[in-house]
Amino acid sequence: MKKLVLLFGLIPAITHAQQSYNNAMSDSAVIKLIADDIMVSRTPYNNLHDLTKKVGGRLAGSPQMVMAENWGKKAMEAAGADKVIMQECMVPHWVRGGKDEASVNYKDAGGRVQRFALNALAIGNSLGSGAKGVEGTVLRVNSFDELEQQKDAVKGKIIFYNVPFEETFIETFRAYGKNVVYRGAGASRAAKYGAAGVVVRSMTNAEDNHPHTGSLKYNDSFPKIPAVAIGIQDVAKMNELIDKKFVLNAKLITHGKQLPDTIGHNVIGELTGTEHPEEIITVGGHLDSWDVNEGAHDDGTGVVQTIEILRAFKALGYKPKHTIRFVLFANEENGTRGGLKYAADAKANNLTMLFALESDAGGFTPRGFGFSVSDSVWNKLYAWKKLFTPYGGDMFVRGGGGADIGPLKETFGTALAGLSPDSQRYFDVHHAVSDVFEAVNIREMKLGAVNMAALLYLVDKYGL
Amino acid sequence: MKKLVLLFGLIPAITHAQQSYNNAMSDSAVIKLIADDIMVSRTPYNNLHDLTKKVGGRLAGSPQMVMAENWGKKAMEAAGADKVIMQECMVPHWVRGGKDEASVNYKDAGGRVQRFALNALAIGNSLGSGAKGVEGTVLRVNSFDELEQQKDAVKGKIIFYNVPFEETFIETFRAYGKNVVYRGAGASRAAKYGAAGVVVRSMTNAEDNHPHTGSLKYNDSFPKIPAVAIGIQDVAKMNELIDKKFVLNAKLITHGKQLPDTIGHNVIGELTGTEHPEEIITVGGHLDSWDVNEGAHDDGTGVVQTIEILRAFKALGYKPKHTIRFVLFANEENGTRGGLKYAADAKANNLTMLFALESDAGGFTPRGFGFSVSDSVWNKLYAWKKLFTPYGGDMFVRGGGGADIGPLKETFGTALAGLSPDSQRYFDVHHAVSDVFEAVNIREMKLGAVNMAALLYLVDKYGL
Repeated sequence: MKKLVLLFGLIPAITHAQQSYNNAMSDSAVIKLIADDIMVSRTPYNNLHDLTKKVGGRLAGSPQMVMAENWGKKAMEAAGADKVIMQECMVPHWVRGGKDEASVNYKDAGGRVQRFALNALAIGNSLGSGAKGVEGTVLRVNSFDELEQQKDAVKGKIIFYNVPFEETFIETFRAYGKNVVYRGAGASRAAKYGAAGVVVRSMTNAEDNHPHTGSLKYNDSFPKIPAVAIGIQDVAKMNELIDKKFVLNAKLITHGKQLPDTIGHNVIGELTGTEHPEEIITVGGHLDSWDVNEGAHDDGTGVVQTIEILRAFKALGYKPKHTIRFVLFANEENGTRGGLKYAADAKANNLTMLFALESDAGGFTPRGFGFSVSDSVWNKLYAWKKLFTPYGGDMFVRGGGGADIGPLKETFGTALAGLSPDSQRYFDVHHAVSDVFEAVNIREMKLGAVNMAALLYLVDKYGL
Repeated sequence: MKKLVLLFGLIPAITHAQQSYNNAMSDSAVIKLIADDIMVSRTPYNNLHDLTKKVGGRLAGSPQMVMAENWGKKAMEAAGADKVIMQECMVPHWVRGGKDEASVNYKDAGGRVQRFALNALAIGNSLGSGAKGVEGTVLRVNSFDELEQQKDAVKGKIIFYNVPFEETFIETFRAYGKNVVYRGAGASRAAKYGAAGVVVRSMTNAEDNHPHTGSLKYNDSFPKIPAVAIGIQDVAKMNELIDKKFVLNAKLITHGKQLPDTIGHNVIGELTGTEHPEEIITVGGHLDSWDVNEGAHDDGTGVVQTIEILRAFKALGYKPKHTIRFVLFANEENGTRGGLKYAADAKANNLTMLFALESDAGGFTPRGFGFSVSDSVWNKLYAWKKLFTPYGGDMFVRGGGGADIGPLKETFGTALAGLSPDSQRYFDVHHAVSDVFEAVNIREMKLGAVNMAALLYLVDKYGL
């Protein structure tokens, strides 16, 4: 394709003589300065590569968590933080404990026993089955309503939550929001009626067979039964057999253990404010990830964007009026302890938490931001919308934020924003082994950082 | 990440009972109907898979071109076209003719001859070097201005056009537009001063070493010298040595041949208009691709989107007022003969060409459309913008269209539109071996089709 040749053929080459920030520049000129700096920066590629390939999966409590914290501290220092705070934080310590196994057997039309393995991952926080595993007849349900209707048939069964991922929701987080309750509460809801274990259909738009893990929360009133997620191709295989009235038996062998809480850290890089050092603007992502992947989109990209904004501000000589804290939160995936600690510590120190921005929806091309703010703040923010149009981030909607910054709103009423990248590809890789460095497009990730930096600059300059 | 659970957890599951179009529906309801149908459709996946994996690269004149035409005809029929027209069209017939080879040698600091191969692809339409190849000292230039300044030094040299791809242009087509002249005209501009051959830096944002081909146009006044594109890692290697003042010699062996024009076809599926059958709305992409890849984003996705809109309209029982022609253009990459023929034929048959829409910028998540239209048409289109917001395609800008529909504007003054997908990833794969099925996200491609279908529906319903 070459249609734009005529349109753009005459644009002269621009030069890269590095400019510095000065107060006389227009907002659009400052944002362009930031954008130019970030779009040619090699740091995001290098940082994401190191975090995903050298540290890798980094669930709270793991040795990789400690490596990630040390890496984060060094990266913040290299980016030019005025200081780096390692904020201690107790984190949960769940371990997978071994290789998850799941299989199905059934008698075919000729009475022969057929057997196949499922591509399964134990759901985070779930407890192991014991070495012998759990076994039972499969009962398929498509909703909790169906579970309730069949509650007398649940005892001793393996409940198969077969809730399709809603492809017609253009915003894929809506589909996730609809289904995630089955992963989160499905085990205890089934255990209430005596189920032996649960198998949850992965929440994904992908065509592959990777299972997508995530966390559950047991209800202490009921037995803590094993729970696994399975891939979509295995789901299709099971559904085909069940539709043909075959009786399936499933066996699950898992090894999950909840160890005592351990010590982790929020890694906080700071640029100290020149006019209102006691008023804090927060930007961050979470440093932890699931154990089975590289945590690239979730949330390596949020981490890398956070550090990149610090680097760019410092490189351009931008000195914020307010203190900006660049935060790598210790634990989001199975506890959100990092965000809770950050808010509690700010409360204990009587800080003013002006604004918080999180990137935790993947490193995809940015579309805009979701804001949880008052009407007056919304009106102020909305007036800046056009400054984001050249960078693709001008879709401003109400509602949004992030799991790690949520406690700030609860504690202080802080104005929150969440970066909204395009969501089409997120659930292809979310919480699956496929969330790796190679799934990230570096330009898309950097463009997210550009929009985030622009928002932080405006909030810092004009206040809220 | 799980932040949206609370926001969306309570949305009830929607049902998929397939509705049909009826006149009483609001525009937003019709567009939702179209979107729901396309987002759950398996046809785009299957069609793209077949075109890329079973047909593959399909340059004009190749056996794969004929396979692609036959495939396109069947796919149009399967989608429910009222009729399928195979519009004959003479197309250029360039062949690569063999394996392209390029290498560099130089004397290192110790006087030893060092040699390395370049990952090179002959540029389309370029003629072969002869079996012995061409060889010469490398002269690096960063612009045509530099070439002119050094014109007395060009004779017998291999000119290395080292024009960096502009990373600070957020819209990547601007960077392409700035640099593509070196691929297109660089050989003849250098041959004018006696160059032996040219090596062109690939126009890409990717970090890999794939060379990106494309077409050139020789100026008949000068010798038709060999021309190759090379990958970015090889560019870096050469630049490093040249910066260190080593004298490089390069050798190019290419085999390109321009054979006599041959017969191809525009594949035209038609839904005949119920009220204005003589007024034609055109939508399309181009069926041809470069020989070295699967032509997935360029322009398999445009082809698949075109067919998908036809399928959805037919499946929903939508009967357009105007005739809609769904066109797979025969030849865009090295001649744009398909579009020229389509316009000439419409002129010869005295048709009214109301509107034309092309998708030829990749199958990425849609951002909006570019329109080349009059002020009054622009105002009409702009009033529809909000209908596109739920589908991500509401960035309406002036200027745009497509290479294949351009001749309609020249011939008839037809109002033109081009789909504008997000451009961040396009030049990672454009004209390189990496433009394959796996590089396409099916949801993103389908969402492009949704926005295109919505635009066609509105133009058909309200006219222009």
